Amino acid sequence: MSKAIYGEFVERLRKIKDVASATALLNWDKEVNMPPAGAALRSQQVATLSGIAHELFVDDHFGKTISRLAASKHEFSFAERRNIELVQKQFERNRKFDTEFVQRKSKIISEGYHAWVKAKQANDYSIFQPVLKKLVDVLREQVDRLGYENHPYEALLDEYEPGGKVATLDALFDDVKKKLIPLLNKINAGTPPEDSFLKQHFDKDKQWDFGIEILRRMGYDFDAGRQDITPHPFTISFGASDVRVTTRINPDHFNTMTWSCIHEGGHALYEQGLPTASYGLPSGEYASLGIHESQSRLWENNVGRSHDYWRANFPLLQSSFPKELGHVSLDAFVKAINKVEAQPIRVEADELTYHFHILIRYELEKALIEGSLDTEGLDEIWNQKYKEYLGIDIKGPAEGILQDVHWGYGSIGYFPTYSLGSFYAAQFFAQAKKDVPDLEDSIRNNDNRPLLDWLRESIHSHGAIYHSEDLCEKVTGRGLSLDDFMEYADRKFSWVYGV
Amino acid sequence: MSKAIYGEFVERLRKIKDVASATALLNWDKEVNMPPAGAALRSQQVATLSGIAHELFVDDHFGKTISRLAASKHEFSFAERRNIELVQKQFERNRKFDTEFVQRKSKIISEGYHAWVKAKQANDYSIFQPVLKKLVDVLREQVDRLGYENHPYEALLDEYEPGGKVATLDALFDDVKKKLIPLLNKINAGTPPEDSFLKQHFDKDKQWDFGIEILRRMGYDFDAGRQDITPHPFTISFGASDVRVTTRINPDHFNTMTWSCIHEGGHALYEQGLPTASYGLPSGEYASLGIHESQSRLWENNVGRSHDYWRANFPLLQSSFPKELGHVSLDAFVKAINKVEAQPIRVEADELTYHFHILIRYELEKALIEGSLDTEGLDEIWNQKYKEYLGIDIKGPAEGILQDVHWGYGSIGYFPTYSLGSFYAAQFFAQAKKDVPDLEDSIRNNDNRPLLDWLRESIHSHGAIYHSEDLCEKVTGRGLSLDDFMEYADRKFSWVYGV
Repeated sequence: MSKAIYGEFVERLRKIKDVASATALLNWDKEVNMPPAGAALRSQQVATLSGIAHELFVDDHFGKTISRLAASKHEFSFAERRNIELVQKQFERNRKFDTEFVQRKSKIISEGYHAWVKAKQANDYSIFQPVLKKLVDVLREQVDRLGYENHPYEALLDEYEPGGKVATLDALFDDVKKKLIPLLNKINAGTPPEDSFLKQHFDKDKQWDFGIEILRRMGYDFDAGRQDITPHPFTISFGASDVRVTTRINPDHFNTMTWSCIHEGGHALYEQGLPTASYGLPSGEYASLGIHESQSRLWENNVGRSHDYWRANFPLLQSSFPKELGHVSLDAFVKAINKVEAQPIRVEADELTYHFHILIRYELEKALIEGSLDTEGLDEIWNQKYKEYLGIDIKGPAEGILQDVHWGYGSIGYFPTYSLGSFYAAQFFAQAKKDVPDLEDSIRNNDNRPLLDWLRESIHSHGAIYHSEDLCEKVTGRGLSLDDFMEYADRKFSWVYGV
Repeated sequence: MSKAIYGEFVERLRKIKDVASATALLNWDKEVNMPPAGAALRSQQVATLSGIAHELFVDDHFGKTISRLAASKHEFSFAERRNIELVQKQFERNRKFDTEFVQRKSKIISEGYHAWVKAKQANDYSIFQPVLKKLVDVLREQVDRLGYENHPYEALLDEYEPGGKVATLDALFDDVKKKLIPLLNKINAGTPPEDSFLKQHFDKDKQWDFGIEILRRMGYDFDAGRQDITPHPFTISFGASDVRVTTRINPDHFNTMTWSCIHEGGHALYEQGLPTASYGLPSGEYASLGIHESQSRLWENNVGRSHDYWRANFPLLQSSFPKELGHVSLDAFVKAINKVEAQPIRVEADELTYHFHILIRYELEKALIEGSLDTEGLDEIWNQKYKEYLGIDIKGPAEGILQDVHWGYGSIGYFPTYSLGSFYAAQFFAQAKKDVPDLEDSIRNNDNRPLLDWLRESIHSHGAIYHSEDLCEKVTGRGLSLDDFMEYADRKFSWVYGV
């Protein structure tokens, strides 16, 4: 009997996922193909489909189905039980927001986005500040509705990093300050690598071909995906059998296309590796944004900026750009792509100073949600923190507090998942090296399959069954810490800077 | 009060249209972008969305809304009243099919499609015949459920050509026999034009550029559309602000790409011209397949194979292909693109013999639905009719009865709309020439705006408010007849063949 109800439950979730996949296609098409006049109608179609998915989810009958399953959980396998629990949690969460709140919030977000665009263009925080205040207020109301155990920030974090804890983040970012600042000081005493050869003219078509080959070598399945060009690279999935990536090409800077390909490729390998039989169920979904980002960062940095990786791929690159890179040595190339340099823009940051950008966001977000900080004067505090942590002067809010859209969309609790991604990546990669004999040898020899197999088995195959911290414990035998990241960073950057 | 209910009615129809537009995008993407592994999941997503659209339409509450509006029709404008009537008709129609019938029919259709593919590949009608029998039986059951006034065939025709009458088709096709056969005989006594220069190598990229420019000159709005390449050209709309066309390019035959562009361009101009304010309502939808086809055929043939049109466009074509066409005169070119030659394949037929392909289908379809003809031995009857009407020998069912997929999909009642399209096109174009002073001058001078304006006002702006025969009456002051088509054909082809 319960099995039949579970069947109904699965059917409903698949139906919702079909609608979500169609919505994803509407969004992908908007970025890649849609003619300009289609924009207004497209937004309406996305809103309608999102509404239908929501209605299918919060429906009373479905609620009863979930309750009945939850009452007979003991009859189910571990994965089935987790599917029931996770969907129940989501169901109860959604039930805490009435239509009035959802519409009010979405109106403020729409205001927020437009104010952010205007403010950034005008390089004027005062245009955004009053709407940011409203956004913070509505998010604090959301926190009250949701409730929380330890810290109000967790109620928001949970949306992006289910089960995420402020205590974990506090400990990690304390360590960032304690351990990363000394490493940066050590590096600063060394010799910065020469990287001017990365900023030559690189033919766009050849870059494109190189990017496709790089994706292929990673193991990205072009029979179940494709790459296109968009202003902002992204990965999008319509189910594991159709996971698409996009990239952008800067003809005057080699790095832009290459590491966006590898980064999005890492995201895409995760989505292509999710269990297709669990389409629509938590066991077929990504675990969290932090885990998603760990997959992109692992490929982008731990693999894609390593000496081993470029030993395998530099010959191809040189043969694509003999004039531009034929005279550059492998060592010089790997050092150049690992240059560390503090500057104001997060998305352009190197692997080390990046985490101070996130640390600053995290400190501000937590204080805003606690209510211990106001939005007024926040741009000044931002600038002070950049001076304090990174030693740089911010010239204006456009390159400071207004640089990213996230807050404009009401996304508070999202930023920390970027750093979590890097730290999980380092811990996972360290474990993979322990578990897979000669892993680095295989990467050096242009065989990424052993790594991908390990990721598939250790991470991808579990879907969202485990919360990220539990997954980490299961895979590495330990909770998340900064240790592996620091060891990895210290070894690589000491070599790069000759210190 | 009724106004508020009408608002609800509109809102529901827009919601359904949003789902239908998303489904259309899933289908477009499948043809244009989808990686191969995505096929199975995509079919499931299309089925889910179609199901949701159906549920939203047949819903009891919506049924009550429609009934309440129908009861107070007198309070509404003509267009609103027609929207209510047409939706009510569709609602009642859908209510006549229970789930058991819908699923049974869709299973037979799926069998039918696969049997057709196999049979065509094997050039063996006996593979398809038993399934065609089942298809005919289920369609006859459908006719019984739907009911009809004059002839059972009308119940099926009505789906493609709302309000279409067997009496009209009988009269038209009688005239086809009476008037088109003498014209063909007359032509056969003349000199067939030389057309070998159309079958040279034409560079694909240059063909593509020419096709884009041709579309632009017709008035197709690329801000509200785009063109892509697919094996079978089609037009698809996600609302008037995003109407896309596709084409195919044969590097060894000039005609393939050019007239597919003009044909699909004609369809697309209709969709781009539908009233955006009526999105989702009958007043914002195309009137019928016959009227849709009239728009593509008018541009493809009456305009796109005319001397006037090529006076405007031949210089561009010659400058794109100076080596291939520089030595060809305008007259020789226009004659070549109007060559008449009976051959077995409908989609490759010329403007005149085309209608015998449809006549034959129509005769067979009507007899099958009446029950006066069986599917067994139908291939032989097919071949006899091709001998009788077109004087050609059919070598096998792959180029005979199995050439088109329509019957495999259970589409009976569809074919006549192709001929209707040509006949409406001729009658509309004759009227446009009467209504718009110097219309041919403007086309000759590369100004298609006056024609497009006339089509927008006379046809596009009405959506599906009028049934096709009423629209024809309203626009031309007369019911549909073969007269204008015959006059147009006689004049053009007499010149082409020098008779």
